[in-house]
Amino acid sequence: MGMRAAGGAALPMMPRMQAPSPAGARVRVVIVGCGFGGLEAARALAGAPVDVTVVEKTNHHLFQPLLYQVATAGLAAPSIAAPARLLFRRQPNVTTLLGEVTGIDAAARSVQLADGERLAYDHLIVAAGATHSYFGHDDWAVHAPGLKTLADAFEIRRRVLLAFEAAEREHDPARRRALLTFVVIGAGPTGVEMAGTLAEIARHTLTGEFRRITPADAEVLLVEGGARVLQAMPPALSERAREQLQALGVRVRLAALVTRIDAEGLDITLDANTPQARTERIASRCITWAAGVAASPLGRLVAGATGATLDRAGRVQVQPDLSLPGHPEISVVGDLAAAMSHVPGQPPKPVPGVSPGAKQMGRCAAANVLARIAGQATQPFRYRDWGNLATIGRHSAVADVPTPFGPLRFSGYFAWLFWLFVHIFFLIGFRNRLIVLMDWASAYWTFRRHARVVHDVQAPPK
Amino acid sequence: MGMRAAGGAALPMMPRMQAPSPAGARVRVVIVGCGFGGLEAARALAGAPVDVTVVEKTNHHLFQPLLYQVATAGLAAPSIAAPARLLFRRQPNVTTLLGEVTGIDAAARSVQLADGERLAYDHLIVAAGATHSYFGHDDWAVHAPGLKTLADAFEIRRRVLLAFEAAEREHDPARRRALLTFVVIGAGPTGVEMAGTLAEIARHTLTGEFRRITPADAEVLLVEGGARVLQAMPPALSERAREQLQALGVRVRLAALVTRIDAEGLDITLDANTPQARTERIASRCITWAAGVAASPLGRLVAGATGATLDRAGRVQVQPDLSLPGHPEISVVGDLAAAMSHVPGQPPKPVPGVSPGAKQMGRCAAANVLARIAGQATQPFRYRDWGNLATIGRHSAVADVPTPFGPLRFSGYFAWLFWLFVHIFFLIGFRNRLIVLMDWASAYWTFRRHARVVHDVQAPPK
Repeated sequence: MGMRAAGGAALPMMPRMQAPSPAGARVRVVIVGCGFGGLEAARALAGAPVDVTVVEKTNHHLFQPLLYQVATAGLAAPSIAAPARLLFRRQPNVTTLLGEVTGIDAAARSVQLADGERLAYDHLIVAAGATHSYFGHDDWAVHAPGLKTLADAFEIRRRVLLAFEAAEREHDPARRRALLTFVVIGAGPTGVEMAGTLAEIARHTLTGEFRRITPADAEVLLVEGGARVLQAMPPALSERAREQLQALGVRVRLAALVTRIDAEGLDITLDANTPQARTERIASRCITWAAGVAASPLGRLVAGATGATLDRAGRVQVQPDLSLPGHPEISVVGDLAAAMSHVPGQPPKPVPGVSPGAKQMGRCAAANVLARIAGQATQPFRYRDWGNLATIGRHSAVADVPTPFGPLRFSGYFAWLFWLFVHIFFLIGFRNRLIVLMDWASAYWTFRRHARVVHDVQAPPK
Repeated sequence: MGMRAAGGAALPMMPRMQAPSPAGARVRVVIVGCGFGGLEAARALAGAPVDVTVVEKTNHHLFQPLLYQVATAGLAAPSIAAPARLLFRRQPNVTTLLGEVTGIDAAARSVQLADGERLAYDHLIVAAGATHSYFGHDDWAVHAPGLKTLADAFEIRRRVLLAFEAAEREHDPARRRALLTFVVIGAGPTGVEMAGTLAEIARHTLTGEFRRITPADAEVLLVEGGARVLQAMPPALSERAREQLQALGVRVRLAALVTRIDAEGLDITLDANTPQARTERIASRCITWAAGVAASPLGRLVAGATGATLDRAGRVQVQPDLSLPGHPEISVVGDLAAAMSHVPGQPPKPVPGVSPGAKQMGRCAAANVLARIAGQATQPFRYRDWGNLATIGRHSAVADVPTPFGPLRFSGYFAWLFWLFVHIFFLIGFRNRLIVLMDWASAYWTFRRHARVVHDVQAPPK
């Protein structure tokens, strides 16, 4: 494992340059963001003769692959979030600052924080990640929250749990129906995991707890604009995932375009751009947005300061070594980077927006900073593909793992165990691994979900 | 254990009355609130031929004695909160409704909920608990939040953690000092536990994580208007608690009246009403209010609907059997009731506002409802005093436990172990007991606190 960049002899090396810091002073590295990319970059600089400052606008590193479990009340927030500064406790060359970057001055080599403080850097690594995109319909956000932060997860948890509560209170059948209709938009891994879990909550978790409604009557809809679920997977695995979703009771609507979202529900257009095109209205009071990903707005700041170009998703186009054209002292990594993987003898390939990609980029950017300081050549980024995994629900998942002998593709119970193992393994902290394992074991046997707590009930969303 | 009311022959029995429900129909019992009193009342009606409706305005039963641990990032919220309806899953005669009571019509025997729904009752048990009182200074609430709900705990956790974060960012020494001054107002059990834990966080938990400040330089002040801490305890134990607090690094200010709280700090008056009276200004950005308790505003609704009288703290004065004068079908229990304990041959004694009192009242009110339905005499409430416990910090607590041979009073390590055992024992749910025990064991060895997550950082409170 580990990556440290590829280093194939056939690849173009970047020009050597001298360390830019004044003689005698320690080189200052500023890292923006403490997600997978920023965290790995800072860790890779442990012990190096540099002063690292990590600027993070939340106070924690978040294990996003399990965020949907916080949203669906299976895990408590602290189980998947570690205080950022705790992670650098034993790394004395790292200073952690809670703050938001609002400006970059590439000429002066400084970033500005929201409260006016300026941080000078010799090297800057921008790892600000992504947010959700409503494809120009930002007014949909209030009706269909996305899932990127803990605050998002709490809001979705609140809506899901309060919809069942309000349904128990509701006497009008049509409104009760709308309260018991849960819609997830977008059938990537997050959407598939959300929909499968919501179906399990309705069919199993809440059994026996309501007196006026039957939670199992709830309808869970997964709406996808494309032709299949999990489009990053091979078609056969997408089909297996769709079957598994339907077995759980999820209604999957493919090739369905969302054309309107309001407080009462949404409109979807089926068979768009064909003579059979028709619009269907779905009344729902609980809609989750898992469709679009857009790069952090920080991408525009980077582009404005350096002249770098953004791709359609707002990601910053980087050089092979992850630095910016004309600004070798600035690198962009993770979901904010439109990066390519460089394998000797093969054409460059785009890097998918997954956590192993972000972590590998973080390590590569840090190694290249050290290379520059040492006056050595930087290495182009090479993505090591560990495969693709998505869980659908109890006992079901799909996995696509590359091996030297070709891809290993499997689904069902074994894929689910594999998913469990991988997620526990990569979770940070022994205590969290143990707690999550226990919560999952207990949820497996009892169907209970231990975080069914809403701390900001004001009024049920009737 | 258990209580089922005293039943001494010398006590006045309440007049017998017939069941008020129409012949053939099930008797309807409405319980308002699912704290310790409401939960025990509903549980005590399990299997009885009555239809119980529990109305709760949050979706969970909260184990309030450990709420300060959520506020100080030691425990995750789900570890001390159980979904209310999950607790009644196996009790088919209980319907749980998420809602807020906004009116009581004693003549029509119905309660009104915020959304207009009316619930008819034959018997009503009001267990709405207490909130904090700012003694007429409600404008202090925004600067000095109290600690009664999970939302309160998250807000205090946020302020505590962000104060350290902001101090790391602050360059002005006076403002940094104010950010590192933590004030707890009120030295009851909650205030003592908060102050002790804050001192431990500053001195141990955060060690090595900051580069510009030394968290151990933080000052923790416990401000108390009375002459000693833990006034429900015997004076010798109060003195032991004060010593233990000071050993932890807490500065205890006794006989100190708070006369002003604003965004920058607070004024306290020392030696008030004496010629030496003087006012001291304390600059602080993180103030917790643990001083005043007031009955739920529902007390006024009850008084308005029934003519019952309220005491100075807003609690409803109840008959010996916890029902209201002229309204035997309405009982008030828990922190909302100004109840007396009736022991044969002794004068009635006020019941302290502790969870065993609320639980015992809930069981007594339920037993009296069943007695009335059966046409039997009700029993006066008798409080079984299990003693008084407060923890101060690692290895230190004070305990005052009544025994047949006189009170057993002890402090220090053994009292602390006893406190741990009691709190784990009474926590609801095997899973929560296990998790809390693990979190405490881990915190004991590592000083870590596992819930140092702020999900709504917007700007640090500079």
